[in-house]
Amino acid sequence: MGFDGGGTKTECVLMDETGRVLSRGRSGPSNPFRVGVESASEALQSAARDALQSAGRAIHEVAAVVAGLAGTTRHDLAERMRADLSRLFPGSAVKLCTDSELALEAVGESPAIVLVAGTGSAAIGRDAAGRVVRIGGYGPQISDEGSAYDIGRKAVAMALRDRDRRGSDSPLGSRILCDLGFTAWDALNDRAQTSADEVFPKIFPIVIEAAAAGDECAQILLRDAAKDLAALVRRLIERLALGDVPFILAKTGGMIGRKPIFDEALDVALREGAPRASISSLSVAPAEAAARLALELLAPPKSAAIPR
Amino acid sequence: MGFDGGGTKTECVLMDETGRVLSRGRSGPSNPFRVGVESASEALQSAARDALQSAGRAIHEVAAVVAGLAGTTRHDLAERMRADLSRLFPGSAVKLCTDSELALEAVGESPAIVLVAGTGSAAIGRDAAGRVVRIGGYGPQISDEGSAYDIGRKAVAMALRDRDRRGSDSPLGSRILCDLGFTAWDALNDRAQTSADEVFPKIFPIVIEAAAAGDECAQILLRDAAKDLAALVRRLIERLALGDVPFILAKTGGMIGRKPIFDEALDVALREGAPRASISSLSVAPAEAAARLALELLAPPKSAAIPR
Repeated sequence: MGFDGGGTKTECVLMDETGRVLSRGRSGPSNPFRVGVESASEALQSAARDALQSAGRAIHEVAAVVAGLAGTTRHDLAERMRADLSRLFPGSAVKLCTDSELALEAVGESPAIVLVAGTGSAAIGRDAAGRVVRIGGYGPQISDEGSAYDIGRKAVAMALRDRDRRGSDSPLGSRILCDLGFTAWDALNDRAQTSADEVFPKIFPIVIEAAAAGDECAQILLRDAAKDLAALVRRLIERLALGDVPFILAKTGGMIGRKPIFDEALDVALREGAPRASISSLSVAPAEAAARLALELLAPPKSAAIPR
Repeated sequence: MGFDGGGTKTECVLMDETGRVLSRGRSGPSNPFRVGVESASEALQSAARDALQSAGRAIHEVAAVVAGLAGTTRHDLAERMRADLSRLFPGSAVKLCTDSELALEAVGESPAIVLVAGTGSAAIGRDAAGRVVRIGGYGPQISDEGSAYDIGRKAVAMALRDRDRRGSDSPLGSRILCDLGFTAWDALNDRAQTSADEVFPKIFPIVIEAAAAGDECAQILLRDAAKDLAALVRRLIERLALGDVPFILAKTGGMIGRKPIFDEALDVALREGAPRASISSLSVAPAEAAARLALELLAPPKSAAIPR
């Protein structure tokens, strides 16, 4: 069984011994840094139950589990999630990694960089010698530039600035309020103070729709986010000394593949900052990559092509 | 008795019937949006006790109270703070306003704009016809550009980006960690997740010292903040149609008057955005202005020069 858990959702893939996908499961967020260890564990349990039911299997039949969870760069949180997974799957081999490590595993080749652009943002890379470096993703207050959360927060800030200037809401501002079901900014602001993740990331789909429909403010927000994400990749290229080397640059996360207007803006920004990279989206779904890694826990591949 | 309450501290001034300052009191933050109504009320009580003790007076001798509190643009919070003040000073005349309204009262003349640059940021103005408009100050998540909180958050973000690029802390980054008493960014980040106001605004004094000592990153942060604050004023000029009118532009708040390097950068940015403004710092301390307004509650001035 493989898990891919982020700030918005958890996906689970159940695979048989031959690598055939038996079923998939889905649940809410399982990033323990954002939702807490308890909620994150419950989300994993719920996605697993979902997948097991569809396949008509029981939890004790699961021989190996790999979970790639956002927010587990934090050693303490990783340890607690690993303990919960071992309790949840007694007798199984259990391996935990971050969502970005999982994505890098899914790429396989080296050198490579994976850009994670979802509720949060981060970049991870591996040079030809196998050295892995991860940057960004320190949480929404001080990091996660260009992420769905960041776009949402900036969209609200922009809407309030526009309102200050004109004395009334901009079209994008009205749309955000209305689509999120608030009648006043105070109410949205209150909700954001207590549950920011319930507000800001949900604004990204509104912004991307508005941008596609021609809203200039929304287009500016997306262009700025594309630049921020490309800057994250540029910092990693510098750190891994990949400036003059051809390498694979894979994009993954909930922001990718939604609307051409954003994917194209991101590719333009990435090509500018990384002219020697071959840019693609991740070809395997991360939860499926996790399930394949789980198979390898049972029977390690004979030729270890991927430095791990 | 007059109060000036913000996100970092509360100041209290006790005045006799003739307008002579008898004593001053001081306590922690009393912005109810940031610290909650209960903590804010306790801070007011503590500052009042402080001032009364110094002057050897009792609480029942207070005839009138004016409190200018940040965070009370929110109607619900203002009502609850007003109720608490009435309970705290039974038999007194009580008037509550926001910190920025208080500052605008302290300026007296019209047209005028007051820029509040402290833990948060906001601008308030009055045109020649007496119309008052307030902008900004919607809270740290989505507003407060250029404030001490904003500078602190951006300083941490910049330090982490520098660390991502080099693999080690920048001089400013090391200094922030060390001066705040943290040994690792994870610990600072944890504290910021639960009590952001205990972390970010406290970084401003570190940044301003570093900038004065020549740190380029710190200087960039202050320059950007000066531009953000000036943009806030520009939006208010647009809203109040003060573009072609000479007016008073008063600066107030904890960021003002600390180091020439920031005051000068702010004045440069303000003069660029508001060439017809006569820029000054607020000549009366806000808590003293509040006490004077409290006197007026008892005996209204005969010539009401200030539209209220």
